[in-house]
Amino acid sequence: MTKLFEPAGCRVDLRTGAMSDATGAYQKRFRDLAGLYADEAAFSAMQETWNDTVVYEVSEFRPNERTGDLIFGVTRMLPGKVGEEYFVTRGHIHKQSDRPEIYYGQKGRGLMLLESPEGEVRVVAVDAQTVCYVPPYWIHRSVNIGGDELVMLFCYPADSGQDYDCIAKAGGMRARIIDDGRGGWKQIDNPNWRMRDAATVAALYGREKKEENA
Amino acid sequence: MTKLFEPAGCRVDLRTGAMSDATGAYQKRFRDLAGLYADEAAFSAMQETWNDTVVYEVSEFRPNERTGDLIFGVTRMLPGKVGEEYFVTRGHIHKQSDRPEIYYGQKGRGLMLLESPEGEVRVVAVDAQTVCYVPPYWIHRSVNIGGDELVMLFCYPADSGQDYDCIAKAGGMRARIIDDGRGGWKQIDNPNWRMRDAATVAALYGREKKEENA
Repeated sequence: MTKLFEPAGCRVDLRTGAMSDATGAYQKRFRDLAGLYADEAAFSAMQETWNDTVVYEVSEFRPNERTGDLIFGVTRMLPGKVGEEYFVTRGHIHKQSDRPEIYYGQKGRGLMLLESPEGEVRVVAVDAQTVCYVPPYWIHRSVNIGGDELVMLFCYPADSGQDYDCIAKAGGMRARIIDDGRGGWKQIDNPNWRMRDAATVAALYGREKKEENA
Repeated sequence: MTKLFEPAGCRVDLRTGAMSDATGAYQKRFRDLAGLYADEAAFSAMQETWNDTVVYEVSEFRPNERTGDLIFGVTRMLPGKVGEEYFVTRGHIHKQSDRPEIYYGQKGRGLMLLESPEGEVRVVAVDAQTVCYVPPYWIHRSVNIGGDELVMLFCYPADSGQDYDCIAKAGGMRARIIDDGRGGWKQIDNPNWRMRDAATVAALYGREKKEENA
């Protein structure tokens, strides 16, 4: 008989952005985010005071990584900018690229920046009490466009995995989210972004099948 | 190339318990819940005034039912009792019984009542800002133990399906949640509950394999 996993109740603390009864956690400090932002001079200038600061952290409940199960948790992200560009997470596509994800805004003002393998761009507001559905195959990154911490619940299939390289290999994401100078945001093009070639696009769509056949 | 599904942002309205941009919704009225409660005389007595009342409703975002995708939504449930027993949802096990679910309390005071195929019982509090993880193979039902509406976000794998009969066939769930007479709740045994025989238990664990082989 299958050994049963015990039900759990995990409390989300909106003040600290942590979740009780998590099975794990990780933190990203400012120094871990080198290369994400357009304004490298601004990044360097901030390093002296910001280098060890935890810019975002994740606490998660990960029962296992079996197909059909779920992983969920909470992300807490500081407000801030590098130059005029709002703080972002590294961003990823799922290794099993047909796996989706939901993000549920809890505190602060966030955006989900999405990019298809072919380079289509979408932006979804993730304010408190808004669920963002990230469909299969979309690269996605969170952006804190507010003056307060951004706290979001997330949930994704346990066998999804994360591929962070797909963004770096394209010179970043196609769009950047910057301060519009009036307390809001605007989307601009990233001049370093390179359109993926057909083989790369096909691999992003077909990766899970390649692994099954490997 | 795979046709991409569009990203979405769904706002949860805590006042109405509805979710914007839902792809569907359903309601359960009092008359739909006949047979769930121990006190049949109390149920009959309530029918005249309650029969058409929507006791709980669900609005959901269901992109598809493909393995690896996700369905999510919001449940809103009235407060109340039938006799001394708090209002409950019908409850289910997933047709693909190895599929889990998460419930995230948003408003009110809820419990998740869980039962394994062998009849183990668990109770998890689902207060606001608490995530309940329902692991694979657990039958589960929501209970509103508060004086206010219970609102919860839920998320489960898109290929889960629901089997509602497993509860009725056993004479209900093994435990009932009743008013303890002091504004709280207590768990009592349901005398009508019948232990499942070995073949029924095995079918609940192995159902998804039988369907694959069918």
